[in-house]
Amino acid sequence: MRAPTADKPAAATVQSANENLSSQPDLRDNYEYKDHTADIQIHSWGQTLEEAFEGAAIGMFNYMVPLEGVTVDDSLEKLYEVSAHDMESLLFAFLDELLFVFSTEYFLCRDIRIQSFDRDSWTIKCLGRGENYDRSKHEQGTEVKAITYSAMQIHEGKDGAEIFVIVDI
Amino acid sequence: MRAPTADKPAAATVQSANENLSSQPDLRDNYEYKDHTADIQIHSWGQTLEEAFEGAAIGMFNYMVPLEGVTVDDSLEKLYEVSAHDMESLLFAFLDELLFVFSTEYFLCRDIRIQSFDRDSWTIKCLGRGENYDRSKHEQGTEVKAITYSAMQIHEGKDGAEIFVIVDI
Repeated sequence: MRAPTADKPAAATVQSANENLSSQPDLRDNYEYKDHTADIQIHSWGQTLEEAFEGAAIGMFNYMVPLEGVTVDDSLEKLYEVSAHDMESLLFAFLDELLFVFSTEYFLCRDIRIQSFDRDSWTIKCLGRGENYDRSKHEQGTEVKAITYSAMQIHEGKDGAEIFVIVDI
Repeated sequence: MRAPTADKPAAATVQSANENLSSQPDLRDNYEYKDHTADIQIHSWGQTLEEAFEGAAIGMFNYMVPLEGVTVDDSLEKLYEVSAHDMESLLFAFLDELLFVFSTEYFLCRDIRIQSFDRDSWTIKCLGRGENYDRSKHEQGTEVKAITYSAMQIHEGKDGAEIFVIVDI
């Protein structure tokens, strides 16, 4: 971890303000930056919880690859099925599965329709439509690295539903 | 918070995989992104703790404005003095003061020399040399919003010193 300090200044010596006034001091190189951590909160809503879930998923894809540039390839539609043990873990599993399939098969959903949302078995079945990610065709957004439970909120009421989910980027 | 869903799909209706196969589905707009939070860890080192402190400070400035493009204006050198109550708070106060002066007076340090590092009174006096930030001249990096105590590490040994400090960006 301790890198050589090729450009090391004589910091142990107190340097007078009057020294080297006319010269530009060498730039230091005794520092580095470690990967930064970042997250973004996706807020989605709808008249039903299904719509809010779909919105969160589409929001996630759109953050990674702007969906205006993604088309639906009818030969590639994908069925997803995820199960969990409560509402929060179902949202997590839903987004996590979509992200996993994107990471491994490069399948980008431009549209997602939840076909079944079972609150007894906490299972979602949904259909994703889109196309495979193509570096030469698609604009690149910001990679979503992981879904989190941090400050997750799922609200459902007579006015509709909304979701807040934070994802690591 | 609940925005209108002008582009709302009929999610409540289970949509067959065979519907609309040839058409591009409308893009949803039932989601939005909330400000993301991010941080970066600065790691610096030196033969002395003073050097490591200076490196962390220069690393902070270089993250905000690449210092290759910053010159020393001899008429603008600045003396800083900060006090704290232990080593960690001294590092915090040191970086915080440099950041505060940059935020209020736009003074960018290209070089920083610690002139006195007093471990009895936990006081640092240092000289910063550089110039005022000029939007038309300087490349813009990423704003450092705040110093943090998060996972702060200050190590000092016979092989030298090193610092890890996380700043919010």
